[in-house]
Amino acid sequence: MDTGTTAFMLCCIIGLTMMIPGLALFYGGMVSVKSSTNMMMMTFGAVAIVGVLWILFGFSMTFGTSYGGLVGNVTEFLGMKNLMESQTTISGLPVTLFALFQALFAAITVALISGAAADRMKFAAWMVFATVWAVLVYFPVAHWVFAFNGVVTPDAVGGWIANNLKAIDFAGGTAVHINAGAAALAVAIVLGKGASWGKLRKPHNVPLTLLGAGLLWAGWYAFNGGSALAAGNSAAIVMVTTFVATCAATLAWLAVEKIKDGHVTGVGAAAGAITGLVAITPACGSVTPVGAIILGLVAGAICPYAVGLKEKFGYDDSLDVVGVHLVGGVIGTLLIGFLASDTMPNKINGLFYGGGFDQLWRQAVAAGAVMVYSFVIAFVIAFVIKKTMGIRIPTEVEEKGIDAHVHRDLAYELEYA
Amino acid sequence: MDTGTTAFMLCCIIGLTMMIPGLALFYGGMVSVKSSTNMMMMTFGAVAIVGVLWILFGFSMTFGTSYGGLVGNVTEFLGMKNLMESQTTISGLPVTLFALFQALFAAITVALISGAAADRMKFAAWMVFATVWAVLVYFPVAHWVFAFNGVVTPDAVGGWIANNLKAIDFAGGTAVHINAGAAALAVAIVLGKGASWGKLRKPHNVPLTLLGAGLLWAGWYAFNGGSALAAGNSAAIVMVTTFVATCAATLAWLAVEKIKDGHVTGVGAAAGAITGLVAITPACGSVTPVGAIILGLVAGAICPYAVGLKEKFGYDDSLDVVGVHLVGGVIGTLLIGFLASDTMPNKINGLFYGGGFDQLWRQAVAAGAVMVYSFVIAFVIAFVIKKTMGIRIPTEVEEKGIDAHVHRDLAYELEYA
Amino acid sequence: MDTGTTAFMLCCIIGLTMMIPGLALFYGGMVSVKSSTNMMMMTFGAVAIVGVLWILFGFSMTFGTSYGGLVGNVTEFLGMKNLMESQTTISGLPVTLFALFQALFAAITVALISGAAADRMKFAAWMVFATVWAVLVYFPVAHWVFAFNGVVTPDAVGGWIANNLKAIDFAGGTAVHINAGAAALAVAIVLGKGASWGKLRKPHNVPLTLLGAGLLWAGWYAFNGGSALAAGNSAAIVMVTTFVATCAATLAWLAVEKIKDGHVTGVGAAAGAITGLVAITPACGSVTPVGAIILGLVAGAICPYAVGLKEKFGYDDSLDVVGVHLVGGVIGTLLIGFLASDTMPNKINGLFYGGGFDQLWRQAVAAGAVMVYSFVIAFVIAFVIKKTMGIRIPTEVEEKGIDAHVHRDLAYELEYA
Repeated sequence: MDTGTTAFMLCCIIGLTMMIPGLALFYGGMVSVKSSTNMMMMTFGAVAIVGVLWILFGFSMTFGTSYGGLVGNVTEFLGMKNLMESQTTISGLPVTLFALFQALFAAITVALISGAAADRMKFAAWMVFATVWAVLVYFPVAHWVFAFNGVVTPDAVGGWIANNLKAIDFAGGTAVHINAGAAALAVAIVLGKGASWGKLRKPHNVPLTLLGAGLLWAGWYAFNGGSALAAGNSAAIVMVTTFVATCAATLAWLAVEKIKDGHVTGVGAAAGAITGLVAITPACGSVTPVGAIILGLVAGAICPYAVGLKEKFGYDDSLDVVGVHLVGGVIGTLLIGFLASDTMPNKINGLFYGGGFDQLWRQAVAAGAVMVYSFVIAFVIAFVIKKTMGIRIPTEVEEKGIDAHVHRDLAYELEYA
Repeated sequence: MDTGTTAFMLCCIIGLTMMIPGLALFYGGMVSVKSSTNMMMMTFGAVAIVGVLWILFGFSMTFGTSYGGLVGNVTEFLGMKNLMESQTTISGLPVTLFALFQALFAAITVALISGAAADRMKFAAWMVFATVWAVLVYFPVAHWVFAFNGVVTPDAVGGWIANNLKAIDFAGGTAVHINAGAAALAVAIVLGKGASWGKLRKPHNVPLTLLGAGLLWAGWYAFNGGSALAAGNSAAIVMVTTFVATCAATLAWLAVEKIKDGHVTGVGAAAGAITGLVAITPACGSVTPVGAIILGLVAGAICPYAVGLKEKFGYDDSLDVVGVHLVGGVIGTLLIGFLASDTMPNKINGLFYGGGFDQLWRQAVAAGAVMVYSFVIAFVIAFVIKKTMGIRIPTEVEEKGIDAHVHRDLAYELEYA
Repeated sequence: MDTGTTAFMLCCIIGLTMMIPGLALFYGGMVSVKSSTNMMMMTFGAVAIVGVLWILFGFSMTFGTSYGGLVGNVTEFLGMKNLMESQTTISGLPVTLFALFQALFAAITVALISGAAADRMKFAAWMVFATVWAVLVYFPVAHWVFAFNGVVTPDAVGGWIANNLKAIDFAGGTAVHINAGAAALAVAIVLGKGASWGKLRKPHNVPLTLLGAGLLWAGWYAFNGGSALAAGNSAAIVMVTTFVATCAATLAWLAVEKIKDGHVTGVGAAAGAITGLVAITPACGSVTPVGAIILGLVAGAICPYAVGLKEKFGYDDSLDVVGVHLVGGVIGTLLIGFLASDTMPNKINGLFYGGGFDQLWRQAVAAGAVMVYSFVIAFVIAFVIKKTMGIRIPTEVEEKGIDAHVHRDLAYELEYA
């Protein structure tokens, strides 16, 4: 065991946990005041249920020995009991710590989807969706992408994207962002348009959204840097690219806002930063710092247009999970095929560095496979929920506010009188 | 010196410090808008005074050579000067860092009490209470529980609970949560009922409370994991149980709310998470991950009923420090006696694992001793303050708002006009 | 490479990044509701642009081989490419990680200045100012102070303050706080008085300011402790002094408020904490814990008076960057000359410890040089911006609110109706 690497990963757990309030606020600040408690509760609720599932059998489904590269053995590490007693390490890291690190990936990915369901989803339906989607989509897809052969036990067989396709996804461009973004699209479609669709929607609390973005940014270093699974130069490089891509995407988003709308906004700064973080997530170990600036500028310039797709196609992805996470995730995943440099930890050259199209098609296949799988299964889950327990609160309750009439818990009581 | 362990503990200081704004917001969001600045200031004020006391002589009282297992030698490390110059390490950790880690335990424990004093306590009285309670209660009790023989110097004699009774308290179920919870009960009784007692009290800012809970959650890994005092498998396991107990308690609290009240709330999600964190604190090194889920479910199911005790018995524990910290701390401390497994770092079996009643009675004695001592001394301190400088602001000022009329500092000025 | 030290510094990046939302909120909560989005955006905008500049050439200007101790070679590490491929370490630390650590120093320092420009500065002018000041002032001054001979490459020649003057500035009393504070004074003068000058200005959201202070406090351990560049006893000691100076300054500020105004405030608690953090920053490695208490008390007692200078001299330093950062930075820098003890990591005795005046004059020269250079160049930059693109929004827009009329992005929409 390496105490330095262990120390780093222990602290990454603190950083990843900051992303829970970070995401809750990032989303919570953007919705109407009438649904901000509900919005934040969707994050906390998803984390709570996915956390328990992960410990019980999710880790086993994701990192247990593979059935054909598609899903791990659900009984292998049931309840994690075998892991506690073992002295197993993953490159110097206690396997329990690796399991916890990945637990937070699972929990946060599911919570990301909630941004598409603002104002109008039954809380119980959300909890059921989170449960089923985690089991049917996240655990298998994380297996595809993150379960490298031999990771938990020396002769373990892992997932097909990591080991057969060999697409690069350093920290979850496919497994986290495309995955959540595609599911968000499905949920938005099944839910249908919110009551305020077509009206001007204003964020009710911009400081909370900026704070949320800031906490996410801080925690994201644990997400990306921790994925190096070692306290060393790779983690450091990954944090450099993460930092500068975020800066560049923020600048690009604000520039597009200025050009498109004539003014820059606080939500734009927050969305720009998150877009940079999303796009660099798969690529943080394969593009150079200057490549990361380019990647950040590209994502930060395209995504403010991508968030307009919902008006064009008529799906009510309330908080732009599609525009930021799906599109940003696809951009980052594909740009690896162009911008990867073999001087970086992933040691692959992309098209612009003389690597030809080899890596690019692998990236495209991975992105496409995760997108289609997640979208289809999420659609089916949401549809079944809709037809059984119901997925949406009544429109009149939505108009009056889900906080007041479902949770009986207004976010604010600010009157001094 | 082990640089990995040192790195971990250095970063734990960052995590623990996040708990300062975390607690200030968790409490600050739950009170009325008229007293939110006061509420947050109680946290910052308590941390400031206890921090200075700790450096001057608190560390010495807690970790100096013991007088009969009851309290350490106050002059041994006066001003910490000897520690700076020494090369002493505690299992590979600079002793200065251990001292700072424990400083934040002291500061946060005192601040926890303030939740019982919302809206109506003189700020000066609070600062005096914090000072005297830290000296007469926290420093000795932390000595009882945390000062293991030989910790700072090889032949140092420590506290009676750690070394003689051998109760298990990994990170402060007794020394922190029962301790603060019992003091909160005493303060609530001496203060008397607030002016709004019996009326519906609504949290003024649920997002701040959820954010506070999230920051506390993140920082709590430093609290519990750091108590392993090493970057290794124990810390990792402790974080796993901390994580999943929190998730389980959140689910349980929400389920009880749904059954009891018909709806789930944001404050419920926050309180559920904190309850899980409190209850797992003593037990995080002795219950398995599945045991932690059970522990979290038990605490998360009982505490939402325990917070109703104040109406039954008529003490105005405004923000439920008793219901969450005292009751949650007792649950966690006692459940060790049932659920402990010797496969875990504490290497003890509880009743359900064939360990008999041996550990259970030790846990009960520790919980009882800390509860009684803290309650009695806190009551006396508060009573003396009441009879001398006065402890409570006038009722008419309380009704108008302590922020406006004592601090002249409204929390919010949100009018755009 | 030392994995423990690397782990510590990787986690410091998370801590430093928390200072971005921390600062945005600390400032954002103090301004009027009409300009809070703008205020927060100035932090995010400055970080974004400085981050990109740093990676492109700022690191090279700061840590490249020196031209006469004044500025580093701008082309040496252009785009950081050479650093990624190298195996260079700085005392066991990957050089890429050192570069990222310093990137956040640069970004945060520039953002600090924005507190002087509340309510009335064109956002584009701010972004231009941030760019030019970073290049002409921060990068060179950081070179003076932080570029020790031999730091990045063994035979590299560094800056004059670090190597020739040998003033002590552990973590940026001169390079960060005096530097930003002096620039803030210049910007305030060039901008002129805000429309609300002379009227009572109330913070619009005290909880956000206290939260911001708390996040800054947590992150500051990374700032100061990380400057030890090693996971060891020095970092631990530095965190102890940082902690207790902050506590002491908070107490002192509140005491002064009580004496001066008759009541204590939430903003006072926040400002007191930040003052302690600022003042201890240069001194955290040279004063004992008791010395840190004295230093904190001195800074916390003087700065609440120093913030009144703006009324006396008529410069509209809206959020007291001068009173807190410039004055606090000067206090901390000079007190090293009195309170330094050679038992501490810097191994220097100040006047009170028998070291004579030798260190004191070095401290004074460093403080004076940075102050004058930063003030003069910042004044020129701001003045040129004023005369070319314009620096200030029209007064009628300022009165209506920069958020509504420039950003079209109100911070809050809190009406339930």
